[in-house]
Amino acid sequence: MTPDSRLQTPDSSSNSQLFIVNCSQLVTLAGPPRPRVGAEMRELSVVEDGAMLVRGGRIERVGTRAEVEPFVGAGAEVLDAGGRLVLPGFVDAHAHPVFAGNRADEFERRAAGASYEEIAARGGGIRSTVRRTRAATGDELFAAARRRGEWFLRTGTTTVEAKSGYGLSVEDELKMLRVVRRLDAAGALRYVPTFLGAHEVPDEYRARRGEYIALVVEEMLPRVAAEGLAEFCDVFCEGRVFNVEESRRILSAARAHGMALRVHADQLSLSGGALLAAELHAATADHLEHTDAAGVAALKSAGVQPVLLPGSVYALGSRRYPAAREMIDAGLALVLATDFNPGSSPTPSMTMILSLASTHMRMTPAEGITAATVNAAYSLRRGGEAGTLEAGKRADFVLHDCSDYRELAYFFGVEHAHAVYTGGREVFRRGGAFAAQDVDENNR
Amino acid sequence: MTPDSRLQTPDSSSNSQLFIVNCSQLVTLAGPPRPRVGAEMRELSVVEDGAMLVRGGRIERVGTRAEVEPFVGAGAEVLDAGGRLVLPGFVDAHAHPVFAGNRADEFERRAAGASYEEIAARGGGIRSTVRRTRAATGDELFAAARRRGEWFLRTGTTTVEAKSGYGLSVEDELKMLRVVRRLDAAGALRYVPTFLGAHEVPDEYRARRGEYIALVVEEMLPRVAAEGLAEFCDVFCEGRVFNVEESRRILSAARAHGMALRVHADQLSLSGGALLAAELHAATADHLEHTDAAGVAALKSAGVQPVLLPGSVYALGSRRYPAAREMIDAGLALVLATDFNPGSSPTPSMTMILSLASTHMRMTPAEGITAATVNAAYSLRRGGEAGTLEAGKRADFVLHDCSDYRELAYFFGVEHAHAVYTGGREVFRRGGAFAAQDVDENNR
Repeated sequence: MTPDSRLQTPDSSSNSQLFIVNCSQLVTLAGPPRPRVGAEMRELSVVEDGAMLVRGGRIERVGTRAEVEPFVGAGAEVLDAGGRLVLPGFVDAHAHPVFAGNRADEFERRAAGASYEEIAARGGGIRSTVRRTRAATGDELFAAARRRGEWFLRTGTTTVEAKSGYGLSVEDELKMLRVVRRLDAAGALRYVPTFLGAHEVPDEYRARRGEYIALVVEEMLPRVAAEGLAEFCDVFCEGRVFNVEESRRILSAARAHGMALRVHADQLSLSGGALLAAELHAATADHLEHTDAAGVAALKSAGVQPVLLPGSVYALGSRRYPAAREMIDAGLALVLATDFNPGSSPTPSMTMILSLASTHMRMTPAEGITAATVNAAYSLRRGGEAGTLEAGKRADFVLHDCSDYRELAYFFGVEHAHAVYTGGREVFRRGGAFAAQDVDENNR
Repeated sequence: MTPDSRLQTPDSSSNSQLFIVNCSQLVTLAGPPRPRVGAEMRELSVVEDGAMLVRGGRIERVGTRAEVEPFVGAGAEVLDAGGRLVLPGFVDAHAHPVFAGNRADEFERRAAGASYEEIAARGGGIRSTVRRTRAATGDELFAAARRRGEWFLRTGTTTVEAKSGYGLSVEDELKMLRVVRRLDAAGALRYVPTFLGAHEVPDEYRARRGEYIALVVEEMLPRVAAEGLAEFCDVFCEGRVFNVEESRRILSAARAHGMALRVHADQLSLSGGALLAAELHAATADHLEHTDAAGVAALKSAGVQPVLLPGSVYALGSRRYPAAREMIDAGLALVLATDFNPGSSPTPSMTMILSLASTHMRMTPAEGITAATVNAAYSLRRGGEAGTLEAGKRADFVLHDCSDYRELAYFFGVEHAHAVYTGGREVFRRGGAFAAQDVDENNR
């Protein structure tokens, strides 16, 4: 299916029924209408030999086949899952999917021994992506992101956050966010827009950073708000990027414009980002590799969700993973995300993140799936729509080529998704021999 | 394409020409007929805008389009690579792809805090795979491995080593190796068989390990040799499995039967495996996480190739990666492999291994590709057939969905292969939107 044919597919408002049967496990994550904490993160509400009924792009019923079948009308289309695992689409709550070019050249230099800092000093790092993103037209950015959008779908993600932050000028930040709006409107993968004008101080403002912050607060934010281009505002809070005071000023201004807040916090040092996120009652504090017990306690009392990004720890060759176990034990409603970006985390795959969480952060596969679906959805204010398979929610679901949810985190480096549906419509189906077979539980 | 249709496809001995054009980079790895060492590992012999001519399953010519085109006959089929990267198929020189069941349950227990040792003590670990593999019929093992074979192809591997070692009885080891023979005969993915009867001491011989070693030497090896079921013999040389003396006895007997040798060496401790591999002039010494400078020097003087397996280091949550940099600098003809198995390395993806090598072992993408193709092929005695794209070799090649070879190691957690050919025949082609587009260099 090409992107164009997707665009031309009739809308999901069709009122015919879709009846999904023969799921080895239907992982619903059904539960209270709030994110999961503590031991709840291990409860996935799995229906064995489950079935699901979809109508008008929404889930009508979920349960065992015997429970659901009486509600199947004449003319319903049957989708035989072939003994596969069925899960809600992943919700990737921290990503930078809009950019021009890539940084494979810098990746090579780092493998050969150059440090991230040396590369940045020579004009590389985020500055090189900013140069290329500024030089690209909106159409070029759209086309590149659309290609990468297939990666997200292929790896089972149906909703992705999309941050600006490679424009760093009024017009280029607006250009990025308008591309995000187009991507979301194009269908298939759903996008949630976040304004990240304070991702870095651009070169032309190096000697006058105060002026850049004023530009963000006085020009970018009002324009973004006036066009309704972002639901969230994020800041890279880190001593050498935007310090706590600067971050507070920007985030407070965003809140005054009605945006909810996310914060890049304590990634490279204990710089106070988690405490700031708590102070401002941000939706999320992201990264948290260096957050201490006081930071964890502050997030807990303020109801801030931690978004952990092990892909960037891995890709930077670091060994300092965030303290997921301690955060879960403290009762935080943990989220996992890819941090997909061309510098520090070039992976769009949430199952890769599940692998990292289980092998390097002592999270069980069930905790990982909760963090990657229902908890992530609530962190993006999509808890009422996505992240679980429950009646009334959008029919965003994925058939995976295995029979047990634990395999998603266990077998790594491969794509598990067999078919992906958003709003009840098929938006991806894998070719190859697997497509022609049922999953045989005994022989996997 | 289903497995069955693959089996029925006419053989590659067809004499029609296939002309591959429009490759952004044709990575040939052409060079002297031996594995690459030192700085040679960074020389991939890349032809920009390359072309290749295939006939009768073999490569006829490689070069620029202008160089190759004069030799294209009437009726040649044209394969437009769409601006994609073209590489030899990966050669995975250390894998355990034949087994029954999986160990996702133990993976979950380890994520929750149980140690590998605790799980083994409760009957888990390799012993659980041995139980299930013994209980499976040859047909069941074949079907399960055939499914996993598609994973290898989808991730760009065209030749894979296949070890026995989950049977641990005469009949069950023979059963495994006969399955490997059937898998190879079935076409598409090529298999190289290795006898690993000394993978572990089975439960029923725990109290009389000497008898198990005698069984391996006096019954298994002669039967395996008589049926011609293995080209290589491997031993898990490790204090608590088979010590150096026991390993020497088994490997020497295998050599007397005409088999070449591979050794699981120094994985969990510095147990002398590398020195033994050097003493016996084994083809490879594998793992080497604990090998010291004396071991590296011994491998060098004996011409033994190191096979490094970062997937198992990653999946075990360890931080002790083998010293790839030092081995390359010492002039060893390094090989990378997946160690695909249901316990310590559940990944079939060589590009995942390239990512690990670049992010955690300071190997450049070019060094990784050399280690995963030409060097791996020589370690399996397939250097004359596979591992490079040169006239006379088998036409085992892969079109990847990117324009630059560095992207294979850089973007991780996704499958890069777009189409896979073995012996000049298409054995895999990816569905989805990417399939319908050219790769646009500017917008990746």
